[in-house]
Amino acid sequence: MIIDVHGHYTTAPAALGAWRDLQIAALKDPSKAPKAADLKISDDDIRETIENNQLKLIGDFETSSTWAAICNELCYRVSQLFPDYFIPAAMLPQSPGVDPKTCIPELEKCVKQYGNVGINLNPDPSGGHWTSPPLSDRQWYPIYEKMVEYDIPAMIHVSTSCNPAFHTTGSHYLNADTTAFMQCLTSDLFKDFPTLRFLIPHGGGAVPYHWGRFRGLAQELKKPLLDEHLLNNIYFDTCVYHQPGIDLLNTVIPVKNVLFASEMIGAVRGIDPTTGHYYDDTKRYIASSKILSDADRFQIYEGNARRVFPRLDAALKAKGL
Amino acid sequence: MIIDVHGHYTTAPAALGAWRDLQIAALKDPSKAPKAADLKISDDDIRETIENNQLKLIGDFETSSTWAAICNELCYRVSQLFPDYFIPAAMLPQSPGVDPKTCIPELEKCVKQYGNVGINLNPDPSGGHWTSPPLSDRQWYPIYEKMVEYDIPAMIHVSTSCNPAFHTTGSHYLNADTTAFMQCLTSDLFKDFPTLRFLIPHGGGAVPYHWGRFRGLAQELKKPLLDEHLLNNIYFDTCVYHQPGIDLLNTVIPVKNVLFASEMIGAVRGIDPTTGHYYDDTKRYIASSKILSDADRFQIYEGNARRVFPRLDAALKAKGL
Repeated sequence: MIIDVHGHYTTAPAALGAWRDLQIAALKDPSKAPKAADLKISDDDIRETIENNQLKLIGDFETSSTWAAICNELCYRVSQLFPDYFIPAAMLPQSPGVDPKTCIPELEKCVKQYGNVGINLNPDPSGGHWTSPPLSDRQWYPIYEKMVEYDIPAMIHVSTSCNPAFHTTGSHYLNADTTAFMQCLTSDLFKDFPTLRFLIPHGGGAVPYHWGRFRGLAQELKKPLLDEHLLNNIYFDTCVYHQPGIDLLNTVIPVKNVLFASEMIGAVRGIDPTTGHYYDDTKRYIASSKILSDADRFQIYEGNARRVFPRLDAALKAKGL
Repeated sequence: MIIDVHGHYTTAPAALGAWRDLQIAALKDPSKAPKAADLKISDDDIRETIENNQLKLIGDFETSSTWAAICNELCYRVSQLFPDYFIPAAMLPQSPGVDPKTCIPELEKCVKQYGNVGINLNPDPSGGHWTSPPLSDRQWYPIYEKMVEYDIPAMIHVSTSCNPAFHTTGSHYLNADTTAFMQCLTSDLFKDFPTLRFLIPHGGGAVPYHWGRFRGLAQELKKPLLDEHLLNNIYFDTCVYHQPGIDLLNTVIPVKNVLFASEMIGAVRGIDPTTGHYYDDTKRYIASSKILSDADRFQIYEGNARRVFPRLDAALKAKGL
């Protein structure tokens, strides 16, 4: 089995986008805001968007959507219509300057009613203005307490950049990955929450490429070795779109900390002219790796995801998988 | 010869720091601001800071200092006291919200009077709030016109982070490198300035690790292949502090685009317990590379720097080097 821990439901029905446009247009005049009930999406609409997109390509997904309640329900419906392919992670209704603990009701609903096995936590709800305190700040602790209670990990993934300095998928995403890792490195967050688990997407941003730099910075800050300080709590996905990058990831980061993912359908959708294959067909890079054994590959494809997402493991076992 | 294109004069005399503290304290009451003439630093002071630090370790440097006129003069004096070891690049007096063309007099002074062979251009003078337009914006063009006129490159390097979300050397620096590269990728800047040259430090931030991602994004944006679109104008330094990172850099980036640098004395000053050597002793990684030939090593150590910094090449040749 191959578990992809980083999928995007970017092909949602057009009615969702139209509804969102109305919602944004009404920000200055709330009386014009559309109601959730105004949004009509049939099961056939969902089936069509999935069968013509994700299912043509792969078999797993995780949401990185933008508006929590509607999108979480939509993803839940996807998971119900295609139970052999998808299991949802919850987007939280985060807003700049709003206390993260306001997200807890949505988080609880998603875990209890929708069977979500993880959450997405955005370290920068401002969208590129970086106005939130670091992930080590106590304002985030109510979310962490719930994560520990439910034994669910968080993907640490930002959303669209609203800052013209940052291209969303080319710099904001990767910068956020590096930033989140460094926020953890400088803190003692995982002393307070020894079982808290963060999944840093896009192969950890710049982190594995600069592993020596981060080891050296931890040393200067009198922190323990990174294996002990962070690698019982931080995991990286494989959304790195060329063989040398994947090989570096697997050279410096222990196999136990790497989880398979493709971001499909995500940032980079073209065919690499140097290989003739899709850039984001990350399975090819793992399959072709000369560094990994078959046992390593099993951990990256499946074993690690079962360990980091225990509710996913339980759901699979309930199906005899 | 080994030319290090990325050194920091971080060991300046203590009087400089004390003067800066007074200057910052007087921001709210300019009548209390110290005068430049109040700062007394003797040649012996400079000799002592260099001989006990950089010269114990390496033989080249480039400034990444913070306040232009005083610091540029100080670096000029270093270059005069140690002409066989250092040649300066100019810091520009950039401030958030201030037109970059106000930097031109300082730039001209540094080139004409101080013999500077390059400049440092900060894409985010706000220090982590990212309030400036992208490097492709026409507000930067007066700087580029001077760079072309004098045939000098710019190191694209930010300064201290004032945003608690970003650790200066652990995330802000690397994020800025990635951000600057992507700002160039999405634009046609180098069509307007075909001879403009940017040096992106810290091995290009996250860029080489995600080279497939950037190739794919350029393709989606209908840009030319990166070799043609950016690699006649963008160069990366070797400030990557472990062998696998340097090997990745030299696997995906052509030798002609890689310039030797150590950042000494910079971000990471410890000894790597896995090797027993300094993290930032980057010469070891280049020397140990199994990817590079001796001819490649010559280009990275010296040849490329002479080509990218023609005024450095001329200064060396004037000495018979």
